[in-house]
Amino acid sequence: MTHPNAHLIGQQGGRRALATPALVLDKAAFEANIAAMAAAAKASGLALRPHAKTHKCKSVAARQLAAGAVGLCVAKTGEAEALIDTPGLKSLLITSPVLGPSAPNRVAALASRIDELLVVADSDLGADALSRAAVATGVTLGVVVDVDPGIHRTGCAGPDATVALAQRVAGLPGLRFAGLQCYAGHAQHIEDYETRVVIGQMALADLAESAARLTALGLAPPILTGGGTGTFAIEAGLGVLTELQAGSYVFMDVEYDAVVLTQGGASPFQPALLVEARVISANTADFVTIDAGFKSFATDGPKPVVIGGAPAGSEYAFMGDEHGAIFAPLALGSTVTLQVPHCDPTVNLYDFIHVVDGDTLVDLWPIEARGRSY
Amino acid sequence: MTHPNAHLIGQQGGRRALATPALVLDKAAFEANIAAMAAAAKASGLALRPHAKTHKCKSVAARQLAAGAVGLCVAKTGEAEALIDTPGLKSLLITSPVLGPSAPNRVAALASRIDELLVVADSDLGADALSRAAVATGVTLGVVVDVDPGIHRTGCAGPDATVALAQRVAGLPGLRFAGLQCYAGHAQHIEDYETRVVIGQMALADLAESAARLTALGLAPPILTGGGTGTFAIEAGLGVLTELQAGSYVFMDVEYDAVVLTQGGASPFQPALLVEARVISANTADFVTIDAGFKSFATDGPKPVVIGGAPAGSEYAFMGDEHGAIFAPLALGSTVTLQVPHCDPTVNLYDFIHVVDGDTLVDLWPIEARGRSY
Repeated sequence: MTHPNAHLIGQQGGRRALATPALVLDKAAFEANIAAMAAAAKASGLALRPHAKTHKCKSVAARQLAAGAVGLCVAKTGEAEALIDTPGLKSLLITSPVLGPSAPNRVAALASRIDELLVVADSDLGADALSRAAVATGVTLGVVVDVDPGIHRTGCAGPDATVALAQRVAGLPGLRFAGLQCYAGHAQHIEDYETRVVIGQMALADLAESAARLTALGLAPPILTGGGTGTFAIEAGLGVLTELQAGSYVFMDVEYDAVVLTQGGASPFQPALLVEARVISANTADFVTIDAGFKSFATDGPKPVVIGGAPAGSEYAFMGDEHGAIFAPLALGSTVTLQVPHCDPTVNLYDFIHVVDGDTLVDLWPIEARGRSY
Repeated sequence: MTHPNAHLIGQQGGRRALATPALVLDKAAFEANIAAMAAAAKASGLALRPHAKTHKCKSVAARQLAAGAVGLCVAKTGEAEALIDTPGLKSLLITSPVLGPSAPNRVAALASRIDELLVVADSDLGADALSRAAVATGVTLGVVVDVDPGIHRTGCAGPDATVALAQRVAGLPGLRFAGLQCYAGHAQHIEDYETRVVIGQMALADLAESAARLTALGLAPPILTGGGTGTFAIEAGLGVLTELQAGSYVFMDVEYDAVVLTQGGASPFQPALLVEARVISANTADFVTIDAGFKSFATDGPKPVVIGGAPAGSEYAFMGDEHGAIFAPLALGSTVTLQVPHCDPTVNLYDFIHVVDGDTLVDLWPIEARGRSY
């Protein structure tokens, strides 16, 4: 079964003829976002290790690497398996703790397929399992000790636990102590810049103290990794991290558009990830119905925002699994363009990214790691 | 890349060793649900045409057909393409209007692969496009005219518009007038039974009047299709529909568990669709972190409900894209079983259903139509 939009590649106006709903990437905005973050990271002296949980796509990842990224992050082992052979990928970090009967072995099996495989741990049990898997497989795994930024989602609770786990890792066969991670997820979407600076700093306090103590113990962490699109402009000033895990900047969703990303207020990033949908019913006075609902947009955050095909300011409302309303008198069969509300879980609904240049469909990129949360 | 859980099929206790999160189907509950709805439909004299937008899976569909279903519903053309060769499938209804440059042709291309292909229309433009596609392809399409139940999502507005479109369809080349549809989505989740009877009746008033007028005009609708899991026990008493489109009954999610499905209050259906997740971090006093968040559960409705692996009444809370909290002191690496909040958009996140019999994994069923909203 070939994709019903494949025949439209290269056709002028093909974007308007897409089988909908379609996940669309504005090529110019996407390329500008990649260049802007690469430049910002370079200027700040931080290494950039983009988080691929956002896009789950080799074609996107390869372009981030070509622009100077030192490697990639993924959240899950399944994503690592799906993206391990991304062109140009030399270092891959799995940012969630890995546990269970099969996951440590799956991680170890990947290590021989890449220059550097890094994986997070926040418990003795997790580190010990990685050690056993590495020894059984005959590889060395780089283990990054995760530090809780204060939200208690993952990570060691405080410097004592962090230092102890790092020392344990350093002594386990098959493992190399590769550094510390601290991802302040709660700081990323604080809309006010100055508040975000304060919260970001607080979140990194335990990481900074742990790194200092480990250095004094002769176990200096090779990398200190964390940060996101919400704090990319702050991290250099805080002076703690050595590398940045930002992901959403490539797409810029409705959520991040509400965040004042830089001190001056200007955002270096543009909305690049869109959904093209179609009016499929128009029998009422107040709105028309489009073919995109809960199965086409993430529903954990704000609503999708209409940015094309309808008068400025037209509102979208969910109408169940398959449909949505646009409050505008649109023609039956016409297409509407919406910015995605929260990019990561929206991408996870689609198998292909439709790359567009204006109204021309230029490529279909498979989303190789879609659904690979395991 | 084979599925990391494939090697566990048939192993005693394999369910506890799954790579997680995994979408799990309790075989006994699932089979009981299929049998219960088949029996209820038979007793009521209504034909059963289960909605496959719920499960998107040939293996589930084939079992519904084997139990006596007259055919299937799908919401979208892409689902029809993915499920067209389901064993035992003789009649397939696409329940949303089909518009755009390619969709009518894609529908027509399917007609020769099945005994009966039915598709909904609610506009002249839509019916005309189907007629052109059918003529160009050399097939006959059965068109079901959609009637608005009062929520203005899709459907003709009132009996005048419905009768006029049915007459138009009957006169167009390549089309056959196949009946009327009225799906009262807003009635399905009203938790009180008596209120649901009243709303259900009101929603079908335009369908009933349209059917009577068409019959008087010599254009009796061959089928009157609609209803859902929320109204399955009501429809026979209302005496309007000839067939029932229920879908969620096969799985029973948290949402439908809150609905009093029958007059006596007893539900003939059991929770069958579950997510198996794993504790991957346990460094805080109040809760543990599992590996299932926004990418593993639908977020449009209630929260997932913990039903195994933790003390009764333990609560789940979302902790972002990849993680959730369970408020219980669980062991690191242990598994937790959760009932899915809203089944349709949850299934749409996964590529495989893990069929379990107790603690044994007995099969992996591909979810062929996952993501095919286009």
